[in-house]
Parts: sequence; C-alpha cells; structure tokens
Amino acid sequence: MRIGVLTGGGDCPGLNAVIRAVVRKGIEGHGWDILGFRAGWQGPMDGLIKPLGLDEVEDILARGGTILGSSRTNPYSVEGGVDRIRAVVAEHGVDALIAVGGEDTLGVAKRLTDDGIPVVGVPKTIDNDLAATDYTFGFDTAVHIATEAIDRLRTTAESHHRALVVEVMGRHAGWIALHSGLAGGANVILVPERPFSIEQVTEWVQRRFERQFAPIIVVAEGAVPDGGAEVLQTGERDAFGHVRLGGVGNWLAEELAERTGKESRAVVLGHVQRGGTPTAYDRVLATRFGLHAVDAVAEGDFGVMVALRGTEITRVRLAEATASLKTVPLERYQEAEVFFG
Amino acid sequence: MRIGVLTGGGDCPGLNAVIRAVVRKGIEGHGWDILGFRAGWQGPMDGLIKPLGLDEVEDILARGGTILGSSRTNPYSVEGGVDRIRAVVAEHGVDALIAVGGEDTLGVAKRLTDDGIPVVGVPKTIDNDLAATDYTFGFDTAVHIATEAIDRLRTTAESHHRALVVEVMGRHAGWIALHSGLAGGANVILVPERPFSIEQVTEWVQRRFERQFAPIIVVAEGAVPDGGAEVLQTGERDAFGHVRLGGVGNWLAEELAERTGKESRAVVLGHVQRGGTPTAYDRVLATRFGLHAVDAVAEGDFGVMVALRGTEITRVRLAEATASLKTVPLERYQEAEVFFG
Amino acid sequence: MRIGVLTGGGDCPGLNAVIRAVVRKGIEGHGWDILGFRAGWQGPMDGLIKPLGLDEVEDILARGGTILGSSRTNPYSVEGGVDRIRAVVAEHGVDALIAVGGEDTLGVAKRLTDDGIPVVGVPKTIDNDLAATDYTFGFDTAVHIATEAIDRLRTTAESHHRALVVEVMGRHAGWIALHSGLAGGANVILVPERPFSIEQVTEWVQRRFERQFAPIIVVAEGAVPDGGAEVLQTGERDAFGHVRLGGVGNWLAEELAERTGKESRAVVLGHVQRGGTPTAYDRVLATRFGLHAVDAVAEGDFGVMVALRGTEITRVRLAEATASLKTVPLERYQEAEVFFG
Amino acid sequence: MRIGVLTGGGDCPGLNAVIRAVVRKGIEGHGWDILGFRAGWQGPMDGLIKPLGLDEVEDILARGGTILGSSRTNPYSVEGGVDRIRAVVAEHGVDALIAVGGEDTLGVAKRLTDDGIPVVGVPKTIDNDLAATDYTFGFDTAVHIATEAIDRLRTTAESHHRALVVEVMGRHAGWIALHSGLAGGANVILVPERPFSIEQVTEWVQRRFERQFAPIIVVAEGAVPDGGAEVLQTGERDAFGHVRLGGVGNWLAEELAERTGKESRAVVLGHVQRGGTPTAYDRVLATRFGLHAVDAVAEGDFGVMVALRGTEITRVRLAEATASLKTVPLERYQEAEVFFG
Repeated sequence: MRIGVLTGGGDCPGLNAVIRAVVRKGIEGHGWDILGFRAGWQGPMDGLIKPLGLDEVEDILARGGTILGSSRTNPYSVEGGVDRIRAVVAEHGVDALIAVGGEDTLGVAKRLTDDGIPVVGVPKTIDNDLAATDYTFGFDTAVHIATEAIDRLRTTAESHHRALVVEVMGRHAGWIALHSGLAGGANVILVPERPFSIEQVTEWVQRRFERQFAPIIVVAEGAVPDGGAEVLQTGERDAFGHVRLGGVGNWLAEELAERTGKESRAVVLGHVQRGGTPTAYDRVLATRFGLHAVDAVAEGDFGVMVALRGTEITRVRLAEATASLKTVPLERYQEAEVFFG
Repeated sequence: MRIGVLTGGGDCPGLNAVIRAVVRKGIEGHGWDILGFRAGWQGPMDGLIKPLGLDEVEDILARGGTILGSSRTNPYSVEGGVDRIRAVVAEHGVDALIAVGGEDTLGVAKRLTDDGIPVVGVPKTIDNDLAATDYTFGFDTAVHIATEAIDRLRTTAESHHRALVVEVMGRHAGWIALHSGLAGGANVILVPERPFSIEQVTEWVQRRFERQFAPIIVVAEGAVPDGGAEVLQTGERDAFGHVRLGGVGNWLAEELAERTGKESRAVVLGHVQRGGTPTAYDRVLATRFGLHAVDAVAEGDFGVMVALRGTEITRVRLAEATASLKTVPLERYQEAEVFFG
Repeated sequence: MRIGVLTGGGDCPGLNAVIRAVVRKGIEGHGWDILGFRAGWQGPMDGLIKPLGLDEVEDILARGGTILGSSRTNPYSVEGGVDRIRAVVAEHGVDALIAVGGEDTLGVAKRLTDDGIPVVGVPKTIDNDLAATDYTFGFDTAVHIATEAIDRLRTTAESHHRALVVEVMGRHAGWIALHSGLAGGANVILVPERPFSIEQVTEWVQRRFERQFAPIIVVAEGAVPDGGAEVLQTGERDAFGHVRLGGVGNWLAEELAERTGKESRAVVLGHVQRGGTPTAYDRVLATRFGLHAVDAVAEGDFGVMVALRGTEITRVRLAEATASLKTVPLERYQEAEVFFG
Repeated sequence: MRIGVLTGGGDCPGLNAVIRAVVRKGIEGHGWDILGFRAGWQGPMDGLIKPLGLDEVEDILARGGTILGSSRTNPYSVEGGVDRIRAVVAEHGVDALIAVGGEDTLGVAKRLTDDGIPVVGVPKTIDNDLAATDYTFGFDTAVHIATEAIDRLRTTAESHHRALVVEVMGRHAGWIALHSGLAGGANVILVPERPFSIEQVTEWVQRRFERQFAPIIVVAEGAVPDGGAEVLQTGERDAFGHVRLGGVGNWLAEELAERTGKESRAVVLGHVQRGGTPTAYDRVLATRFGLHAVDAVAEGDFGVMVALRGTEITRVRLAEATASLKTVPLERYQEAEVFFG
C-alpha cells in the first residue's frame, strides 16, 4: 500500500509532528510506502513528490513550519485540477491521501473523497476555531508565545506606569486572546466575538492605574470597537505629524493615551506566534492526530477528520467538521471579567 | 460571606493561579471575604491565617509554589484535629473551605464535609493520575520541562553516539514519561504500568545505534524491570570502585553500557519538574478550576471536586473522585511503540 | 553610614539585580543603612523613600523592571531641584548615592558630585552604546529575546517562501540588530550607522529566494535608507486603501514585496525586548556592577561609574564615561556581510 | 585554496556556529573549498570527509552538538597517526586545518603545526577554564540552563521549606557554579578551588531557614569537603536500606538533612547543561571565532588560537594558550559571599 501526505494553508507549529507520525506508523506499523506531496494541493496536481522514509522524518518533530511546504491552491478552482490529481495519484499508485489543513484544505478533502479519491483529514488552525475538535495543534504554542510576551511586558509597564496593549492573532475567534489573556493576567481582554466599548475599556484601565498598577490589555486582531472596524482606519496624523499606525492595537493605545492622559504603547506580536518549535502539548496532539489518521486509512474510513474529544482521538465526518466556526461563547468571556480592571 | 482556601500535599505549578482566581472571583464576583489558611490542613487546625485581598494575589499568577505553603498534615490522624478545625472555622466565621490538593487532601475534604464542615475540592497532582478529571494542572508544566531537557540531551547524545537515559517523575503512573517521551521523540519509553524487559530495551537501543543515531530512553521513576524493583538495589561497586548510583535511570544506563558496549549516561530530572512558572496551559486550567470552585461554593454544592471534561469544567462527588488511579492504558502505550528503536 | 540608591531613565532587565547587590553588600558587607529613592531623581528631590532591608530584595533578582520605579526627571531642569536633593539628603543623613541609569541619569550624577553631593554611577543602556564599558546589562537580554523571535520567524518564512523583516531596538546604535542578526542567522542586517541601499537589500533578498530559502532581514529601528528618514513617512495608501504602517520595518516589507514580487511581512518587536526576567549573563553583570558600586562608595571614590573591561569591573570618571556614543564600527558590520544573501 | 575543519573533545553548544562561520567566510569571503573532517582527529587520520558547501551549513547555527561528530582520538598516541594525517592532507590538497576543541585537541594542533601541518585553533571548553581567552562559547549556555533550573527549584524549595542542592558541571574550575549561583540567587556556592567546611555550609543553611526562606546550594561537581573527596564515597546505606547515591550533591543533601533536621534534596543537572541550542551570546562568540580563524588562515598565521579579549577577537600562540588553567580567583569567590546565608 502507498499513501500520500500533504500540508495546506497557513503554517502552524506541529505540522512536522503529524508528518513524522504518519511516516513512522505507516512504515513501522503497516509496512506502507509514504509519499510526501509538496506545497499543499499543488503537490498532487503537479506531481511534486518527496518520498518519505524514516530518515527524512528523523529530525523534524521539534521543528516549526512544514518540510513539505504549503500553499492555498484549490484544485476545484483550477481548470482540470481534480483530473490532474487523479492522474498523479494513479501514476504513482497512491491508494489514499492524508491532508493536514484548515477549512479550505479539508473542504477539498471532502470533495475529493466524494469524487473517488479517498482522503483522511487532519485539522489545523492556530486559532482553535474548529467546532468539531476540542483543540487543534498550534494553538497551545501560539498561546504560550503570547503569554511569554505578556509576562515580559508586565514589568516594563509597571516600571513606567504605562498602559500596554498587546495585539494577538484571531481574526474571527478570540481564543488566543482569551487564553493568553487569562494566562498572562491581562487586565482587559478583547475578542472579535464582542464589540467593545472604548469607554468601558478606559474605565478598567483607569481603575488599574488608581490601584497603582499598570494595565495590560490583550486584544485579538479582529476585535472591533462599538462603532465598527471603519473607526480604526483614519489616515490621521498624530501630534508629531506621523501617520497613525493601523490595526486595533495601535488604535487602542492612542485612544487610551488620550483618554487617560497616561503613556500607552502597543505591541503587535504578529508572525512570531505561528513559528518555531511547538510546545510539548502540541507535539503530543499533532503526533496522535497523525497516528490516528493512519488508523483511519488502514480501516478504509475516508471522508473523515481526526478530532480530539476529551483525552481521546475520535473521527468526525468531514462534511460536519467544517460546518461551523467555534467562537468564544459568552459565558467563557464573562468568566474572565472578574480579572478586568 | 467568608471562605477559606488552602493548599495541601506536594507543590505543583499552578497552585497560586488557583488561589488568585478564588480571591478575584470571591471578592469581585461575590463581595466575599477570603482567608488563606497556611500549611495545608495545619492552617485551619492551628488558626494559621493570611487574609487575602486583591493586592495579595496581584503578582502571583506566574509564580511556582504556593504563597500559602503546604503540608501533609491530616486532621484525622491528629487527636482532636477535626474539632480544632471546627473551632477555628467558627471563631473566624468561615462559611466554607476550598481545598486544593491530591488524594490525601481531597480525602480529608470529603470527610470534613460529611462531618459538617463544607468543603469544595480542587484536584492537584503533577502525575495526572486522577481518573475523575481529564487533566490536572502542573502536569503540562512537568511535561514541558522534561521535553526541553530531552531536546537538549538529543544533540549531546548524537555528537558522542551515546545512549542517554532520562528519568522523569511518575511513581505509579507513566503519564509524564509517555507525554514527554512522545514530545521529545524518545526512542524508548518505560512506564510503571508495564514491567520492561531489559533485553527488549537493549534491542531497541541497538537498532538505533545501527541506524547511526543515538538513543534517548525516557523512563518513569517507578518503572521496573521484569525481575522486579529489587533488581535495582544492588549496592555493587562499578569498575572504578564507585558505589553504583541508585534508581532505575542509573541502573538502566549501566545495564545498557554493558550490554551494548556503547557509552551511556543517565540524567535524573528530579524536582526541576515541579518548580517554577507554570505553562500557559496550566495557568488557564488552574484559573478555571479556581473560578468554578467559587461557583460551587456560591451554589452550596459541597463535597464535590471541580474537574476538566473536554473543554468544560464540571463537578464530581469527592467520594468518586479519589476512588481510582488513572494509569496509562495499554493502548496508549502501544500507540507510542512505532517510535521505538 | 547610610546610602541611597535610585534608578533613572528607561527600564532595562537587571535593574533589580543591581539594587539587590547594593543592599546585600551594603548591609552584609558593611553594616550600612540603605534607602531606596523612588522614581529616579524625583525620589531624592521629593523625599520619596523606600527603606531597603534584606527582605525587600529577597525575591527581585530574576524580575524585570525596577522595584524603585523610574522617571526622566532632571533636577537641573527643575527650579531649585538640586537644593531640594541637598535638603532631602541632609534630612535623612544620606552619605552618598548610587545612581543607575543612562546618559542623562549619569550626567546628573556627575554634576551633583561636582556640586558636593557624592554619587557613584552604574551604567544602564539596553542599546549597549556606552563607550566606557564593554557591555551594559539589559543588552544581552534584548539580544536573547530578538534572537528567539528570529528563530521562530525562520520556520514560518521558509514554509511560505516569504521575506520576513524583523525590526529591533536601536535608534542610534545597531548593536542589538548586529548581535541578534548574527545569532539568528539573518540574511541581511541593517544598522543606523550605515544608510542602506534598498537596491542592495533587494539583491540579497532575491539571491536568497533563488537559493530556495526565505530571507530574514533584521533592521534596527533607527536604520535609514539612502534617501534619508523622510522616505519612510509617506502617508500613502496601499493597494487595499489601507494607510501604510509607519517605521522602517513596515516600509522595508512593502518595498521588498513590490520589488521582488514575493510576499513579505514585518514584525516590530517593540517593548517585549526590554521587559521580563534578565538572562543569566545580565544578572551576573548587574550584580557585579552593584557590588563594585558599593566598593567605590566604601572607598570614597565618587564621580565615577563602574564599567566592564574584559572580565574585570573597573571604574571610569563620569566626565569621560558619557562623552561618546559607542556605535557599531565599520569592520564589525563588514564582518557580518559574509552571511548576507 | 582548500581547508579542513574538525571538532574534537566533548561537545559544547556553539560548535556548529563555528563550522558555519568557517564555511561562509571561506566560501563567500575567499572562494575556498571547505572540507569537514569527521570525528575529531580521527577524521584527518582516516580520511573521514564531509564536503561543506553553503547548503550544508544553512540550518545548523541554532543546533547543539556538532554536525561533524567528535572524538578524543589523539594522533600522537596512535602508531603512525601523524603520517596518516600527512597523507590524507596531501591526497586531498588540504592547505590548512581549523581545529575546534579543548586542551587536548589544541595540544595536537600545536604539535602538528610544529610538524609542518598548519593548524589554527578555536578554543572550546564549557567550563570556561582557559586562561588565554576571556570566555569560551558553551559556557554562557551552560550557565543559562543551570540558572533556569535554580529559578524553578526555588519555588519548590520555598513551598516545602526544604534545602535544595543543585550540582552543576565543573570538575576543576567553578565558573559555572559561580555564575549560575550568582544569577540564580544561590544561598551557598561551592567550587572546586576552595575545599568547603560542612559546618560553615550548615551555618549558612540554618541562617536561611531562620529567616523563613529555603536555601539553595549550588555546588560544582568537583567541589570537595575539607576532609577530601574520599569522604564522599561511603557505600553506606541510608535509613531505608538504600545505598547512598554518589557525588558531592547527594552527599551534601544527606549531610544537611542530618545536621539541620530539615528535608533536603539534591538535583544533579548533568548532561542537560551541554546540549541543545546555544544562547545568543554563544552563537555570536562562536561565529566570531570561526570568522577570525579563517582570517588567521588567510594571513598564514598558524599555530595560533583565536581568543576573546574584551570585545575583540585576538590571537594567542597555541603554546601559551593551553599552558595554564583559569580557575576562579579567591576575590571573585569572596565577592559572592555577601549573598550566602
């Protein structure tokens, strides 16, 4: 038997751990051949192949990124894309594919399975916004990195009695903000799921200053003030004639400075959150996902995605898996509010 | 309303996060008074009290250990112990207690509740061996530290073609060994749940050397060879006349050196695994445990322990909570075997 | 004898280590009283005092920031400022001051000594731009944090074949950029000391892409392109109508994207670099500085600053200490160029 | 021109950074061919060659260990060893060698140069005990790791009012103990250079307990009590019939427990200190050593070793370089004593 494995979409710490687990289990557990396809769905379309033996995955568990590269190529958006996959798969005698990726990658996985090319999916989203699984790998690493940054910023905030705004990832879901905000002891946490009142935020910040502490505000990149996102894009110049920086973090820092009369700074963590070595938690989760994806292939159970439920790895039909976004529920957000101010 | 909080048993990263959450939620959410009792159950027996306001918990979230101290004192083993608790609780007008601890501490919590002193429990075991909850805080931190050590040891092992044995915590359950072994890419993992064959271990190690890599063996402190634990205590002197070091890690390193003819070293991680700042994961879990323990008190739901099930915090009757040890199931161990050798 | 200690200017990991060393050596070595003055030079002007015993410094060695707070107050810019210091110093019987700070703080230290208030200086600049000492504490921590970020960004850059621009601290001196660029394996390093040619940078970046690797560009915040700093402030809108972000890092990312046709992202590390726990290197250096500042006081050697020369702590007259900025010499920059492209 | 590079002796974080710098500077700066010799001096004896181009060193800067492997082979102890090197060097047209290693490796480098095979040395000792250079790479990493461990152990010590003994590397020189002890805030530091009095140590420990804190004792593996090393090897059994563990750390923990009546634990850090990714400091130092070793070759300046003096890389004749061990001077040790107890 011969199977292919590929990684699609944005990168995420843990992808290499999945690849390694697939290769070890495929070879050591079943005696299969494993082909890596490069660059997401472009690999099986264009025959971009990297054969994967035990040696190729020897040293990759702890490394960020993906040794197979990635892309956002969608074979269903390319003329004849699916037929090209069919041809490549036939040519190389590939019996099944394991596709690691987010909503888009898994959507393709589902359609390909329907179209006769058997695929097992492995979920990947750093934002943790997939309803079908308790957690996705990469999320814990992102939270870990954001928390370390908050830990560091606290002491510099305190020494200068400044407000510090930390903008973290999360366009549509606030999980990274919520968890790193809780873990870092943030004094305000703002998520995309709940438009925020700048007056309320100012109040929390002021209360903090009154207690002689320096406030840390953790804000998801997708959080918006009550007035809506357009408030954030002003093109204005600040007191020094500099064009104001964009993004909710920078906007918030300037608003808070004006409203409280205190110095205030923003830090936009950006891509640091998605690179580098995965946490132990993510390595274990990614490894288990890879092992169980091979189990699904071995059982001929296609069109499914592996998922975490409690401490167990289960399977979910791909059709359901990507149906709904898992956002931060109101009660989880409210739970955090006792730490505000 | 006035409640007391205490921490018992061995320390564990995350205890301070629980205390902080109890204080913030108690004060900000309910307007209660919070008393800290020092030194585990000795605190309410001897009236060792540290009043906890917002300022006392301002800076403790990221700190290891416990600001309340701990002990292994059991009021049921002390003449008049329970009556002394009753008196202290009455004197200070304490309406309920939140007790953070392991099996022993929670066992006392149960009996006190039965005896009319209402207690809510928060589970704590670095070994993750409590069946009633998916995970306990402190475990992720221990796995993280052990994994970092394995990452570091790998390069030194490779450079010298040595076998490196890493002994991690886990007297009765092998969770830390299993997870850090998976996360660190160990070539052999040994757990207390399965007596190991030194011949089989030697074979894995030799196969690794044959592939021109250096083997890393992760062993729980409670793992025993087929012959039983007495094999490990020999009192022999080695070739240099030094008394052989004790413990399964050192024993294994010497056995492997003799059996493979290759250099071999043991590292016993010890207390490093249970100290210092908790991981973001553990801080979030501990914080949520603390918040939900306050909820249970607010609802008058005593004799329970908070627990993690999937992504939710639930409650379990203390009577059931400590009934059984959660050991590594055979299938979880076998799952890891494709990475051996 | 009674001495005062204060910290001025921007915060910097290691300040608390200096304070602790001063207190331990002052008390344990000499039996002195130690007064902490809060908020830089404002402390001795306004009598903001925090008495420092052994207990106050017990737990601060590993903490970022400064327990004394800081400010940029200059008593020579305040009507009667020096007289107020004289009065406070007399009132509390303070025999000498130890002032930890940068150019401004040390400039005041010099003038005060000349004016009869004896001060010993301890240098502090995260930018490492003081000619009179080999290194200043805080610098190693900043380089460490920037290097960790570069390590993380490399894998995400590789996975997506993107250029990643990392903007680090350094307005006038490029030491942090040079050292973190060398340590992180940057493919281009840009420093304020050498205006850069965007064409040359593009060439290095393109060469990197041609070798199938993703370029990492480390740029000091004060680096400027050949045309001068005004080039960076355009107020233009990008293709999406968003106002372009300011700063050399963002400018560079946009220029490189346009010139190479490849995706390109900027990360501005900002205040994360100056917060949090100091590295072991900085803790040792700061500790030794504190100990030797006490030696200088004990010997009555005022108007000096402690400094590192090789492995020894020496003293420099404050008059000379702040005379010249230590910038990156041409040969150190050129040394790094073999790693470009 | 063609040069060879090799790494000998125990491994040390930073070796790969030296190799990378040699390759980049050799190829990009001079257009040379670079051959890697495997396994220390065994490589040029047996013709074990790994050609090194830019791609081979692309990804190694941040990795511990050495991609060339190492050994303790001494060609002067092997019949015809030097002639075999001469033959291999001639056969491959190698014009000069760069040898990275400790005392033994550099001793061979010196003799080979005398015997007509031109070598430039790069010093390597994790113990920092080479008098000819201010610092050697690997040392900062070892101190960093030991300090992190001490930070972690502090909280667990405090929570249980235990004494914690941390045994760090350093058979003949106490630099790692001194620096990590200072950086970690140890309450006692013991080095091989000064036999210690167990009574004095007990006094410091007891004083610490009296102040209600938990003592941390950092001890170099080579430190010995007044009675001499034989005191440490007793072969006795403890109260539980277990054979006492060997080593000064374990001995000290047992002595302190007996003498103070308090619990006491030892942690032996071991090989964790020499593995894994180097600190930024060590990467910069190792990189600069590699670059300057190439300069020396380019100038035909053989029989020298590169060395750090202040912030400059200089050269020292190999004959002098290894002449004396740099131990911790008395005044540096005494400087630390204000932190004891």
